[in-house]
Amino acid sequence: MLLRAAAAASPLAALAPGTLGYGLRYATTAASTCSGKVGFVGLGAMGLRMAKHLLAAGHNLLVYDSNHLAVESLLEEAAAVRTGSETSSSCSFSHLPGGRWGIAEALRSPAEIAETPGVGVVFTMLSGPDAARRVYLGSKGLLAPQGGIVPRVLVDCTTLDPPTARELAGRVRAAAVNVDKAGAPLQGLPAQSPTLLDAPVTGGIVGADAGTLSFLVGGDEAALPAVEHLLRAMGTSVTWCGDPGDAQAARLCNTMVQAATMAATAEALALARRLGVDPRVMTKVLNSGSGRSWVSQEYNPVPGITPQAPSSRGYRGGLRCTQVADHLKMAVTAAEKSYSPVPMARQVMQLYGQVCEEGLGDLDFASVYRYVYGSGAAHHEWASGEALFNAQHP
Amino acid sequence: MLLRAAAAASPLAALAPGTLGYGLRYATTAASTCSGKVGFVGLGAMGLRMAKHLLAAGHNLLVYDSNHLAVESLLEEAAAVRTGSETSSSCSFSHLPGGRWGIAEALRSPAEIAETPGVGVVFTMLSGPDAARRVYLGSKGLLAPQGGIVPRVLVDCTTLDPPTARELAGRVRAAAVNVDKAGAPLQGLPAQSPTLLDAPVTGGIVGADAGTLSFLVGGDEAALPAVEHLLRAMGTSVTWCGDPGDAQAARLCNTMVQAATMAATAEALALARRLGVDPRVMTKVLNSGSGRSWVSQEYNPVPGITPQAPSSRGYRGGLRCTQVADHLKMAVTAAEKSYSPVPMARQVMQLYGQVCEEGLGDLDFASVYRYVYGSGAAHHEWASGEALFNAQHP
Repeated sequence: MLLRAAAAASPLAALAPGTLGYGLRYATTAASTCSGKVGFVGLGAMGLRMAKHLLAAGHNLLVYDSNHLAVESLLEEAAAVRTGSETSSSCSFSHLPGGRWGIAEALRSPAEIAETPGVGVVFTMLSGPDAARRVYLGSKGLLAPQGGIVPRVLVDCTTLDPPTARELAGRVRAAAVNVDKAGAPLQGLPAQSPTLLDAPVTGGIVGADAGTLSFLVGGDEAALPAVEHLLRAMGTSVTWCGDPGDAQAARLCNTMVQAATMAATAEALALARRLGVDPRVMTKVLNSGSGRSWVSQEYNPVPGITPQAPSSRGYRGGLRCTQVADHLKMAVTAAEKSYSPVPMARQVMQLYGQVCEEGLGDLDFASVYRYVYGSGAAHHEWASGEALFNAQHP
Repeated sequence: MLLRAAAAASPLAALAPGTLGYGLRYATTAASTCSGKVGFVGLGAMGLRMAKHLLAAGHNLLVYDSNHLAVESLLEEAAAVRTGSETSSSCSFSHLPGGRWGIAEALRSPAEIAETPGVGVVFTMLSGPDAARRVYLGSKGLLAPQGGIVPRVLVDCTTLDPPTARELAGRVRAAAVNVDKAGAPLQGLPAQSPTLLDAPVTGGIVGADAGTLSFLVGGDEAALPAVEHLLRAMGTSVTWCGDPGDAQAARLCNTMVQAATMAATAEALALARRLGVDPRVMTKVLNSGSGRSWVSQEYNPVPGITPQAPSSRGYRGGLRCTQVADHLKMAVTAAEKSYSPVPMARQVMQLYGQVCEEGLGDLDFASVYRYVYGSGAAHHEWASGEALFNAQHP
């Protein structure tokens, strides 16, 4: 069943399979916390970083991703850290607190994770609604095991439209727990069925890397104590939003504000520069008063102003424009269904569509500055504008 | 020449006219600070509050406004404070530091202020470019006195388009100082000509009331020491922006960001509510991460979330939608002239145009929440939407 152990020569070898069995699964006195192994499905740019924080906090992981390179990358790094042979990596974890990392094991499908004895909680961090449907409802998905599933709580960190989130929550609630293999029921939750928490995040890759994500959580509030310590291993804030789908709604609304603020700040900084005001001065003006935002303070779109922001690293390694465009589309769709006017979100969705068309889709969403600063009022001025941009930001 | 003294029975009566003459005008050792009387032209909602802070800091004012009721209001309050008979007022200053208020005198025109011996600095705080042209260049304007003007520094706090600001700065520089009546020249500035600083503000009426405005200042930097203590009597931050017009450019760019952030935050809060997420929860989500801004933290558009914000007081007493629309128009015009694409500013300008058309123009600009929350996706749903709004915010 094991695709690959963390490292044959690592302390994993000292653990007989039974060691992680039922006896150890509930470390706390109350059955309000799932302990034991943690499942993690989806090791993309976000999930990989989040999983590492769980490992670094000492949790043992069962992981799956359709991309076996991502899986191998995590397993190799985890093994290297555990054997003390870590040297360097593209995503170094030298900033994590010291201590013993957990063990990572890779399985062949989400279904295999869901039927592994000892798994208490499974996280999913996927690319969107389609992937989420596949991972939860597919023939090898988390809900596929015929005899019921072992984890009592599933936590979906994917950004979804609220209807999909509600549908998945209903499907999970309708599934059965394999009570022979699962741990004790959680206080306040039915013994026979698992539950799904939506836990979409804000903070992007930078937050995932630093372990400073903000989790928005909705669903069965009784399940929160079982997972909060895991969320806090990956993030700094956990905000309870309400029923299934509500956290996703809040997540999309946050994206609307974040993207509009980014676009407005970027075009204002670009205009200021064209009117003769240095972006550093303009940033000071914004931050001194009513133009202040997370964007202007922590994620400035002009290269060199926020050293740790993607804009200062060639717009690499952040929240991609394509993702923002996808999330805005979900938000606008949700708005249409609820007859809510969102003219700003429509405008910024259109703008990010243009940014993607210009070939900046894989860059961080702050690269909208490059788009508005590089281009003049007319589309055809883009080329000369880009030359201007490159000349001013060598 | 005096229209009306502060109060005939006030301590003003104890001051013979000569007491405020030349000998007292320069209190500091270096001639880098204009002291003496301070002129103040424009006692609208902003100017009135700003002038009171100058009085409260002990400065003697020469004031002018075309609306004699505004002038009388200031003079009456100043006299009442000085004689200790102040009881209450629509704009109470009980929150100001104690101490002796300065004396306010009203003159008949800006020109009379500019030719009064003892006036070192004149502030203007006007409704826009047209009023600024009138007050500076009109036949009874600040530059009208034939023998030159007494103040060496004029400070325009009006929000202007950068070209008008640059033109006025040029006209002031081309005017003459009445060297017989003016104080000693300021270090680093020509002895024969006055200078104009642009000092537009952010912070709105709330900031003007509390004395927490942010001043953006441009022009002759050598003139800044002469006025900085006066700016700091009215605000908490003074940011140097550069040449004449640059502060106005920065001011307009700040408005673009402020208005877009407000509109995006308002529509996101409205959408969240329609999707079942309470605005308080949504505000917590925004403030916990990448949706955070001055709007969400200090000026929330949903009634009751920020107690001191205009939204919690019927959207009264803030920055009017009509003003925001005017400033956005100036920003978009400046952007067009510099071939700068500002799609977000265009969208928000259009939105505030609609808000004004709906009759909300005189309300605070946070009332865009009321517009998007009150109206559905289609314009004709406004009426029922307003009923919904009123039912939820009794």
